[in-house]
Amino acid sequence: MDYDKISLEKHKELLGKISIASKAEIKTMEDLATYYTPGVAAVSREIAQNRCKVWEYTALPNLVAVISDGSAVLGLGNIGPEAAHPVMAGKALLFKEFADVDAFPIILDTQDPKEIIKTIKYLAPSFGAINLEDISAPRCFEIEDSLQDLGIPVMHDDQHGTAVVVLAALINATKVLGKDLSKCKVVINGAGAAGSAVALMISRFTEGKVKLALIDKEGMVCTRGDLDEYKKALCSEVNHQRMHESLEKAIVDADIFIGVSVGNVLDKGMVESMAKDPIVFAMANPTPEIDPKLAHEAGAAIVATGRSDYPNQVNNVLAFPGIFRGALDAKATKITREMLMSAALALAGSVSNPTREKILPSPLEKGVAKAIADAVREKAIEQKVIRPKCK
Amino acid sequence: MDYDKISLEKHKELLGKISIASKAEIKTMEDLATYYTPGVAAVSREIAQNRCKVWEYTALPNLVAVISDGSAVLGLGNIGPEAAHPVMAGKALLFKEFADVDAFPIILDTQDPKEIIKTIKYLAPSFGAINLEDISAPRCFEIEDSLQDLGIPVMHDDQHGTAVVVLAALINATKVLGKDLSKCKVVINGAGAAGSAVALMISRFTEGKVKLALIDKEGMVCTRGDLDEYKKALCSEVNHQRMHESLEKAIVDADIFIGVSVGNVLDKGMVESMAKDPIVFAMANPTPEIDPKLAHEAGAAIVATGRSDYPNQVNNVLAFPGIFRGALDAKATKITREMLMSAALALAGSVSNPTREKILPSPLEKGVAKAIADAVREKAIEQKVIRPKCK
Repeated sequence: MDYDKISLEKHKELLGKISIASKAEIKTMEDLATYYTPGVAAVSREIAQNRCKVWEYTALPNLVAVISDGSAVLGLGNIGPEAAHPVMAGKALLFKEFADVDAFPIILDTQDPKEIIKTIKYLAPSFGAINLEDISAPRCFEIEDSLQDLGIPVMHDDQHGTAVVVLAALINATKVLGKDLSKCKVVINGAGAAGSAVALMISRFTEGKVKLALIDKEGMVCTRGDLDEYKKALCSEVNHQRMHESLEKAIVDADIFIGVSVGNVLDKGMVESMAKDPIVFAMANPTPEIDPKLAHEAGAAIVATGRSDYPNQVNNVLAFPGIFRGALDAKATKITREMLMSAALALAGSVSNPTREKILPSPLEKGVAKAIADAVREKAIEQKVIRPKCK
Repeated sequence: MDYDKISLEKHKELLGKISIASKAEIKTMEDLATYYTPGVAAVSREIAQNRCKVWEYTALPNLVAVISDGSAVLGLGNIGPEAAHPVMAGKALLFKEFADVDAFPIILDTQDPKEIIKTIKYLAPSFGAINLEDISAPRCFEIEDSLQDLGIPVMHDDQHGTAVVVLAALINATKVLGKDLSKCKVVINGAGAAGSAVALMISRFTEGKVKLALIDKEGMVCTRGDLDEYKKALCSEVNHQRMHESLEKAIVDADIFIGVSVGNVLDKGMVESMAKDPIVFAMANPTPEIDPKLAHEAGAAIVATGRSDYPNQVNNVLAFPGIFRGALDAKATKITREMLMSAALALAGSVSNPTREKILPSPLEKGVAKAIADAVREKAIEQKVIRPKCK
């Protein structure tokens, strides 16, 4: 199908994808007095006396901002705020459809990290949580880090949503093939937002035992001398068994390839050089790192892509609605590493009998969001990263 | 009725007043591909090539931000952003119910005008228009002025919405009583956001002919030496027949009293000292400047208040939904003085047979918003303050 054409037509016909809905009708003077003046003053007074009451009398407990500066949108790059709007509105639509979260798209007309941080701090009282989206690395790291003390969950989905889905897919892929992820050799191509977060998540899951090569467009990341502060921090934390070769050398005998950068970087020979029954996640969009058919011909046991027209689609929509649903339900003040790990385990567990062609559920299996939400909520409560009750 | 109690109960039960609604369902992989990836990329590319297309493919053409810093909320004062949220959400509800405008409440955690201006500039691409609300004077003047070149309508409703409704009410009140507003002596008590805008609007309507006394808590405004820059600018523009007396003296022989500040400043003697058949707008909330019953006993021919339990309620909801509906429909880039004047005339005209007890329509007469919207839209088109068509 020609999704470009259909998508343009539908967006024009509907004028976007979300609208504002009233929770109450205004039919009588009594309605007006209840929901607006003079009645609303009682609600404002109640909150003025105890700010915590904002969580009891407003829409905030179910309200997420999807915020972007348009600097790294899909595979399109730095296309600016206006062009990013349809993507943010798309996420808002998925939040609603998959997890009944009210989400509102905010696009910012600045790409200065300090200004973005300040603006989001100013906006924070308007929302119950913040989904950062499509903000380029390394700016996204500074921005997300600086907002962890706002008292509401702030998560950059390109990092953590992706990492949750990739780890879940790896857990099931290694299970299907009888591999032990801790003993695997893993090559990650792409060390931006997604690649960094995936590396950290795999490293933590295996308690640092995995052998990991993280490669960006300048070559191997963690063995270079010229690292920016975020790559230095990353390299100090990811596995301590890191490999020192180029992509072509690193992939020899690798069990797992994870591509989160550009397409067409793998050829059949490179896949043939991998260990027995290799796992190839070729997630570059719209062109994968290698055509899944070629990868299989070269011996790949399991192939995943970012595309819906092949089996094993790695799609963030599998994770973010459930993660935020769980965080909101728990009244969480942040989204911790452990909550993300619980999300990955719940996502992996939502496939009852994983096979080579099904290591992840379909994005349409709506029970998945609930399973993740339950796991995330429970972990938040266990970790006590939740708002205290109003006094 | 105990609206405080009912309002608290309803806000708690509904968790606020607005939610996000989907314009499309996600039932199939085709839906996902149409509204999210890969299809949405086509929409983003289209907008990236021509920013103007954001008005054709997103919800922006119907989307208004209701933005406050919580510094001057209802009669409650500076109660901060969280406590302001229910009021902004209330406006969003009224926008939807009265004019099918999608409006979203944004409360800002800063009261520094420069920071508010910058933040709103950063937010501007996310919205089709901006309703500033409950921001204290004189900060509101600087903030609104600084945002007039954003390319979308930005209006501070406490100023202009109020002025539109008051002028409409005065047009009908003077008509009922056979008075000529240009020849009237008008006393305005309160020179904040509302009082200043009302003074300007009456002055413009009468082409500077009205005799006007503007009084704030330090006394007469325009005859003092110690005016801030906004009051200076105001005084250079309002009528040139300004009066030099105190409230008690100014009101002698006045035809019209307009109270937009605090309650209980008028006594019967002061109303008795006014001209024949005086008009008293005692709009302080919740306690009017004088009890309407006392005002009538003292000879007031027409009394209006801000309250719904007396005749002639001056309520901003009569104006703002229609003003923004008209501006959005016209694709206006700003809301001009002339558009506001058209709104006032349309509002006055919406009462077919004004009487002493009905100088304004009831806030529930929903046709009013459409009448105002039509007038505002036509004026915007006539003035050519509209976005050019996309090339």
